[in-house]
Amino acid sequence: MSVYKIVELVGTSPNSWEEAAKEVIETATKSIRGLRIAEVDKLDMRIEEGKVVEYRARVKVSFKYEA
Amino acid sequence: MSVYKIVELVGTSPNSWEEAAKEVIETATKSIRGLRIAEVDKLDMRIEEGKVVEYRARVKVSFKYEA
Amino acid sequence: MSVYKIVELVGTSPNSWEEAAKEVIETATKSIRGLRIAEVDKLDMRIEEGKVVEYRARVKVSFKYEA
Amino acid sequence: MSVYKIVELVGTSPNSWEEAAKEVIETATKSIRGLRIAEVDKLDMRIEEGKVVEYRARVKVSFKYEA
Amino acid sequence: MSVYKIVELVGTSPNSWEEAAKEVIETATKSIRGLRIAEVDKLDMRIEEGKVVEYRARVKVSFKYEA
Amino acid sequence: MSVYKIVELVGTSPNSWEEAAKEVIETATKSIRGLRIAEVDKLDMRIEEGKVVEYRARVKVSFKYEA
Amino acid sequence: MSVYKIVELVGTSPNSWEEAAKEVIETATKSIRGLRIAEVDKLDMRIEEGKVVEYRARVKVSFKYEA
Amino acid sequence: MSVYKIVELVGTSPNSWEEAAKEVIETATKSIRGLRIAEVDKLDMRIEEGKVVEYRARVKVSFKYEA
Amino acid sequence: MSVYKIVELVGTSPNSWEEAAKEVIETATKSIRGLRIAEVDKLDMRIEEGKVVEYRARVKVSFKYEA
Amino acid sequence: MSVYKIVELVGTSPNSWEEAAKEVIETATKSIRGLRIAEVDKLDMRIEEGKVVEYRARVKVSFKYEA
Amino acid sequence: MSVYKIVELVGTSPNSWEEAAKEVIETATKSIRGLRIAEVDKLDMRIEEGKVVEYRARVKVSFKYEA
Amino acid sequence: MSVYKIVELVGTSPNSWEEAAKEVIETATKSIRGLRIAEVDKLDMRIEEGKVVEYRARVKVSFKYEA
Repeated sequence: MSVYKIVELVGTSPNSWEEAAKEVIETATKSIRGLRIAEVDKLDMRIEEGKVVEYRARVKVSFKYEA
Repeated sequence: MSVYKIVELVGTSPNSWEEAAKEVIETATKSIRGLRIAEVDKLDMRIEEGKVVEYRARVKVSFKYEA
Repeated sequence: MSVYKIVELVGTSPNSWEEAAKEVIETATKSIRGLRIAEVDKLDMRIEEGKVVEYRARVKVSFKYEA
Repeated sequence: MSVYKIVELVGTSPNSWEEAAKEVIETATKSIRGLRIAEVDKLDMRIEEGKVVEYRARVKVSFKYEA
Repeated sequence: MSVYKIVELVGTSPNSWEEAAKEVIETATKSIRGLRIAEVDKLDMRIEEGKVVEYRARVKVSFKYEA
Repeated sequence: MSVYKIVELVGTSPNSWEEAAKEVIETATKSIRGLRIAEVDKLDMRIEEGKVVEYRARVKVSFKYEA
Repeated sequence: MSVYKIVELVGTSPNSWEEAAKEVIETATKSIRGLRIAEVDKLDMRIEEGKVVEYRARVKVSFKYEA
Repeated sequence: MSVYKIVELVGTSPNSWEEAAKEVIETATKSIRGLRIAEVDKLDMRIEEGKVVEYRARVKVSFKYEA
Repeated sequence: MSVYKIVELVGTSPNSWEEAAKEVIETATKSIRGLRIAEVDKLDMRIEEGKVVEYRARVKVSFKYEA
Repeated sequence: MSVYKIVELVGTSPNSWEEAAKEVIETATKSIRGLRIAEVDKLDMRIEEGKVVEYRARVKVSFKYEA
Repeated sequence: MSVYKIVELVGTSPNSWEEAAKEVIETATKSIRGLRIAEVDKLDMRIEEGKVVEYRARVKVSFKYEA
Repeated sequence: MSVYKIVELVGTSPNSWEEAAKEVIETATKSIRGLRIAEVDKLDMRIEEGKVVEYRARVKVSFKYEA
């Protein structure tokens, strides 16, 4: 009877949403053990001078919760 | 003028969604004081060899936030 | 060419969401005839001192409308 | 690189939503192999003469897809 | 390639939703650096004896995540 | 094992959404006892000759249901 | 500073959703004065022996609320 | 304790959404027995040279499931 | 690699939602070339003295975008 | 048989969401005649150094469409 | 007056969501003729030992329905 | 107290959703100054003869509004 926690994180990348989402996982895994699933909540882009400068992926990451 | 925090947790149980949700509360209460309301976000089931092996309840739990 | 009305009610139970939803129907049926379908809108729980003290089910109940 | 299919089924039970959902799995497993996850989409109840006669659970079941 | 975290908080005020939301930010800023955006998720009111006693604003606050 | 009813009301005010929502509560409390919570469903404005003439708040109000 | 109430009704017709929705208004107007707007929430059909026997329109009707 | 299946179909008609939805039922009934309810998910139109050439209705049809 | 634009328009008709939606297309086509698809966002009705006086269809129309 | 157009605008204010929404209307009315209704889609806040510096209201404004 | 069917499938890829979605189409096309449009319903990722091991795309695929 | 406008555009690409979304920005920037953020609303694909021929991204682009 395990309990999992879900946290919402936003990753950014100059190249793609996959890279933005991967950035989230690589950063989160430094302090959170046992990441399992990451669901995409929202995708957007930041634009500067008519160019896409950042792909952003908002993801909900779940992992084992130890109270 | 209180502030509350909301965290999203997933409980699991071999028997029922009530038990899965209760498991969330019993685990969370070990480290979080002042739980008030838990809203169900999503219910699902894990299946193995044609049998339901786990009821899962995703809940948003609110409690007093002390910065 | 019948017309139906839909009302939104919340039931509570110390034991389960089924019991909470049944409580809605048993209370509503005292003053409303011809209940047909009750759709669950939302499930939540009230917590006191780290324990689930109330399962709550918000349901939309439909019945024949007599203007 | 597996592909999964999702089908939407509704189970019914006189007793509980867990039983209704379990009924879906037990029926589906007769003709579908490899069921994995079943997400609840909607819960409702059928009422007759002021009594709940049927709990219904609408679930999305996923399984390995063999084209 | 920054990563941001999003937390969900509820502020309360006897006067307005703006004040309730501002309360969230003033409380959160004591322990979280670099708050950027706060999106309103839900507004509600608590009522006592026929009077609004509390405006409540549920907001998602984002800030730089340092793993 | 109490049952609550939820009704949907729209309040209007020339000044603010808070005032519009408060108007709902003050009107409803004349005929409904035991109002507890009012959730905002929708906010909009009516405009005449390029000016906002009315702020409108659509709220769901819950109160104890006596069949 | 008027207050409006919103009620949810379902109309039925063997011919069209417009007729089903009109049926709602004609029935409601017998007991409710001052109907203004009716928003469609859901459209469905009842089927018997492979034929559509009923078009159904679920609508939210608003009218002036006198407490 | 019956189980129902839900399939999603899109009907088209040059004349109306009712006809588009009826087309779905008449086509589905050739191979599916026991259709009960068809819920409208989405309505749209295809346009050619500034004229509506097709009304389209996306519906979820439920029927008894025999595994 | 074409780009399309989507605009949101509301049509009205005393007779039906199809006619209301068709009105949108016939009006839009006067100034917009290359309309393709129109998705229904919302259907409602305006009521006067207990009668439906206007069916309204809110639709999102897409067409080729020339910057 | 009028046709209306809906445009989505975001207003900002250092003080309140009402002021942010009013700003939208006052700006839009300079170039758009016949504004009628403005629906709130989203409310958020921009934060700098732990202080709310901007309330933002995203609104959908409807007005008579002349092709 | 054609009828289309919509099925929901999940594709997986170690590299990208595009590849995951393409995998769905390539697998489905073996047994389904006339695929037209595939709408993305949900994107997520499976994580193992702090690494994204699978991008998953849940898509709704439509094709001509022959009863 | 700036006002922003949001327009909805659909980009297409034979290769990826990132490229489809970038196409939107590059086309829009020819006639719109000051693009800031582009939120993804919907992703889909067009299929021909069992192959993905077009990735499509529907995005909401915001920019400074000058009435």
